[in-house]
Amino acid sequence: MSSSDQYLAVPVSTYASPYARLRPVPLDEVHLADEFWEPRRTINHKVTLPAQYEHLEDTGRLDNFRRAAGKLDGSFQGLYFNDSDVYKWLEAACWTLATNPDPELERMVNAAISEVEAAQEPDGYLDTYFIDEKASERYTNLRDLHELYCAGHLIQAAVAHHRATASERLLDVARRLADHICETFGPEEEGKLETADGHEEIEMSLVELFRETGERKYLKQAQFFLDVRGYGRISGSEYHQDHKPFREQDDIVGHAVRAVYLNAGAADLYAETGNESILRALKRLWENMTTKRMYVSGGIGSRYEGEAFGRDYELPNERAYAESCAAIGSVMWNWRMLQLAGEARYADLMELTLYNAIMPGISLDGQSYFYQNPLADDGTHRRKPWFGCACCPPNIARVIASLPGYFYSTSEEGIWVHLYAEGEANITLYGNQSVRLRQRTSYPGDGDVEIEVEEGEGGFSLMLRIPSWCEGKASIKVNGKPLEAPLYPGTYHEIRRTWKPGDKVRLHLPMPVRMVECHPYVSENEGRVSLMRGPILYCAEQADNPGFDVRDTVLPTDARFSVDFHPELLGGISVLRTTVRSIPPDTGWKGHLYRTANLRENSQGEERDVELTAVPYYAWANREPGPMQVWMRSR
Amino acid sequence: MSSSDQYLAVPVSTYASPYARLRPVPLDEVHLADEFWEPRRTINHKVTLPAQYEHLEDTGRLDNFRRAAGKLDGSFQGLYFNDSDVYKWLEAACWTLATNPDPELERMVNAAISEVEAAQEPDGYLDTYFIDEKASERYTNLRDLHELYCAGHLIQAAVAHHRATASERLLDVARRLADHICETFGPEEEGKLETADGHEEIEMSLVELFRETGERKYLKQAQFFLDVRGYGRISGSEYHQDHKPFREQDDIVGHAVRAVYLNAGAADLYAETGNESILRALKRLWENMTTKRMYVSGGIGSRYEGEAFGRDYELPNERAYAESCAAIGSVMWNWRMLQLAGEARYADLMELTLYNAIMPGISLDGQSYFYQNPLADDGTHRRKPWFGCACCPPNIARVIASLPGYFYSTSEEGIWVHLYAEGEANITLYGNQSVRLRQRTSYPGDGDVEIEVEEGEGGFSLMLRIPSWCEGKASIKVNGKPLEAPLYPGTYHEIRRTWKPGDKVRLHLPMPVRMVECHPYVSENEGRVSLMRGPILYCAEQADNPGFDVRDTVLPTDARFSVDFHPELLGGISVLRTTVRSIPPDTGWKGHLYRTANLRENSQGEERDVELTAVPYYAWANREPGPMQVWMRSR
Repeated sequence: MSSSDQYLAVPVSTYASPYARLRPVPLDEVHLADEFWEPRRTINHKVTLPAQYEHLEDTGRLDNFRRAAGKLDGSFQGLYFNDSDVYKWLEAACWTLATNPDPELERMVNAAISEVEAAQEPDGYLDTYFIDEKASERYTNLRDLHELYCAGHLIQAAVAHHRATASERLLDVARRLADHICETFGPEEEGKLETADGHEEIEMSLVELFRETGERKYLKQAQFFLDVRGYGRISGSEYHQDHKPFREQDDIVGHAVRAVYLNAGAADLYAETGNESILRALKRLWENMTTKRMYVSGGIGSRYEGEAFGRDYELPNERAYAESCAAIGSVMWNWRMLQLAGEARYADLMELTLYNAIMPGISLDGQSYFYQNPLADDGTHRRKPWFGCACCPPNIARVIASLPGYFYSTSEEGIWVHLYAEGEANITLYGNQSVRLRQRTSYPGDGDVEIEVEEGEGGFSLMLRIPSWCEGKASIKVNGKPLEAPLYPGTYHEIRRTWKPGDKVRLHLPMPVRMVECHPYVSENEGRVSLMRGPILYCAEQADNPGFDVRDTVLPTDARFSVDFHPELLGGISVLRTTVRSIPPDTGWKGHLYRTANLRENSQGEERDVELTAVPYYAWANREPGPMQVWMRSR
Repeated sequence: MSSSDQYLAVPVSTYASPYARLRPVPLDEVHLADEFWEPRRTINHKVTLPAQYEHLEDTGRLDNFRRAAGKLDGSFQGLYFNDSDVYKWLEAACWTLATNPDPELERMVNAAISEVEAAQEPDGYLDTYFIDEKASERYTNLRDLHELYCAGHLIQAAVAHHRATASERLLDVARRLADHICETFGPEEEGKLETADGHEEIEMSLVELFRETGERKYLKQAQFFLDVRGYGRISGSEYHQDHKPFREQDDIVGHAVRAVYLNAGAADLYAETGNESILRALKRLWENMTTKRMYVSGGIGSRYEGEAFGRDYELPNERAYAESCAAIGSVMWNWRMLQLAGEARYADLMELTLYNAIMPGISLDGQSYFYQNPLADDGTHRRKPWFGCACCPPNIARVIASLPGYFYSTSEEGIWVHLYAEGEANITLYGNQSVRLRQRTSYPGDGDVEIEVEEGEGGFSLMLRIPSWCEGKASIKVNGKPLEAPLYPGTYHEIRRTWKPGDKVRLHLPMPVRMVECHPYVSENEGRVSLMRGPILYCAEQADNPGFDVRDTVLPTDARFSVDFHPELLGGISVLRTTVRSIPPDTGWKGHLYRTANLRENSQGEERDVELTAVPYYAWANREPGPMQVWMRSR
């Protein structure tokens, strides 16, 4: 069994993307032992993955493969892209096997792979929706029917399986399908189909397959799919990012998952080709998303209609779409941008999104999911154990499974620490030195992080992310001695020295409660604040606040907060408390939606001071239903 | 040529709905001569109707009928419910003929009727989408394909044609189709299809056909379509109002046009049958709509997704859907509620909706339309000359054409005056007395209305609507003598006396500018006000406000307004002006969407006092594009 490697990263070979500044550290070299992620990874492994496998069986998703293989009669069950759920589950399970060997899980993986293998056509084609009488419709409706999207997820699962187990079994299936795709799609003058899939995904997976196999034609094919887009061959619409060529795009538009998957694929292509016009477009799209079209949670895609990005500043709270998968795609894209540039803003956004836009998507027991993630609710939006369109559940599972791979990178300078959590990592530097780092911390419970060089020595830099939320109050000690150089939030601070075992760096990131305000053009948030502490976004949930409606509260602008850790509550959380004014709608509103404003002097005040409790937004909707809000009135 | 009669009202016969308190006054007995409606009616007649007829030709909508009649080859063009656009245009043209005879328009009407007639099948079936190979699919997808919706619009057009011209030609077509529907739909045990159309419309049209023909089976069939709904036979979904039986509904849900069309049909059924459970449901739905789910404009259906009602208080401004057709349906429903109950709140809402939710849907030149009516915009939402789904344009045309019929009703008490505008009306009282009333007024320019009894005498009541927006400041003089009885806003004030020619009533409805606030649970409107004067809603449009962005303005709570009539501007409008504070986003927001709130002390103020100009919302987007907003920050 060979060593496994990190998701979306360099393979175990010496291959490195020529235009990426950083290289990932393989996920199986990173061992988390913290109170936040590791319990979730255990639930993901022990509860979520087996439960999802049962859903794949119960809902006929695996039967679709058996049917395509001629083992079963009957017709295709469910939605036309249901194959992708099996592939995403496989990918999640393989990353889990890479870090947590488990014969039972391996048995499920092998069983699923057998079904996939058997369903493949002799020519390499594989999509269980297009069998029997539908076989003649293959590749006839790329816009809507997600064939290459499914193929992309198979390829990603195969890469994961290969890295986790060194088995070529699923990789061979993926290569045969990828070869079929390369033969089928290309310039019209070569007699090929000159178009791309309506749902991006094939782009990044083909780059990954190129990295895994060294086969340059897969990279070329990914480039073709990027370049063929934007000329109206798919739909000409923003929904499919087909309204203009990628290199000319400025605003991030259309179906949010598709948009960020495309951007992830484009970033992969830049990493391999260095085409500057791709990088410039990526930066413009990132700028537009992060300064105009993103929730304070990191969630993206505000519109229900088309599961899409809205206009600038269109960020409704109760009616937020903010699909879990879109947040996942954002992390995938930002991870690639981080590898390209080594800029902390991408890691800051990954961290924000992981805690506050992805983790709300799964219940604390790991058995139910949000598709949409509203930032306010009346108590009716609840997680579900599964969906007809079940893209989100296995997508969340693969993020949690692959999480250790997001913690570190290496570069010529040395080691980059992107995320903080108790645990250790074995890192191979460019010069082949081996270093073992240990993090000791309660992060994100507090912001004190000790990093010890446990093994390895020599001259290299340790690049520590100083999160943008620190706002100038971070400090560092090396072996007890304070650094004198200023620390800039939103950058990596480089500590260059000759390290030896036992060296300790103490990073202090103060976590006062921050009242965060929003650009005044986001009309729902005007006059409101949200609460954050460290990287964690908070919300007021009715369950903690009996006796008043959380929607009626007004925070004083000089509110002071207490912070108390409750190990028994919601998996262990720090609770915020403060005194607020409860101002229910006055009695004059009864039976009215509008009224002349000068009547407001008549309001029958039932105003009073109450104590408001806020809990992490990621933990909401795990108790009895009731109103919840992230953005609170303040004055 | 017989006298024509009022849309959705008693026919020229002596028929009266037994459970309606009021009877309409036929639209051709009401002659408007005002500065608001009559110029619009002239444009509707002279510009809009001919232009729409050309669109019906150019887009193949009339060709679809020719094709069904075997006069043309080729396949159906456009959307499957395009027949309804022809029918709605016919209805609008017929109401226009009733008040404004015009041989050229009559020629177009007759030409269109010839095409419709020729397309009807021998068995009475008529829907040009279901011909040739699609003929076998008739009535197989009621949920989606709108066959009975189209049929309903044909019936309404036929009733209009019959009332306007006394010709039985189109009515015969409609009766044959209605007979075919009666034979086809009904209880399963009678071997019939036991379901209803996904898009309501057939219900009210069949009641109308019953009133027009006296054929009781049409009424029974309408009742069947109401009663069969709500048991999951269509979809089981709220979208189709099929989630529960009508009589059990509390909240107004789903596709907004369908919902209010259903309610209009149910109100018609109550008017004929007196079934109290229908009336109770109608009142609950009205209460929910008007106190939780309606824009300040009267617009309804806030969600793009499903063109639907949102949850309580879900009323986004820039992202308002507020389809023009939904507002039209609301007026149709409220008109029926008004006839049932004689309560001013229904007429108040009709007036609000006509000025502020329907009229914004058409440009001042009568040639382009809004489908959605946002209450804020960045300058990109513009009217279009036509749509692939062109339900709104001919719907607006039929409202404007039938408008005079909404002005008056009669009852045992006497004459009810619902709407105010310069003009005269010939009204036949229950005792067959004839009365000619004249209104002299600049309404809605100001609120002084003189009503003179020009002809007729005797004892009867004049019921004058005291609009709810008056807030207690209205006054009335009869022949110069002030009434001493108090006037209650939102009621009809009854003046009972023995009238004689020359008697004059002067109604004074003061129109101060009102700053209107919204229930605090509508999150976008918190801390904001809208401006109204009389029944007219205002907005701030960038075109009038060079030098600052209208989105940056903050109104003082004690703002004072000047009101000036500009006859040359936007068809003649009263302009509001006041001093406001312009507070652009401070420079600290550059490149940021969120920031810690305590930084707000650092804001670089470019605050200053500016003069804000506001214009009627109905007139927006008739000049150069730019930001617009109805709800303005206030503090």
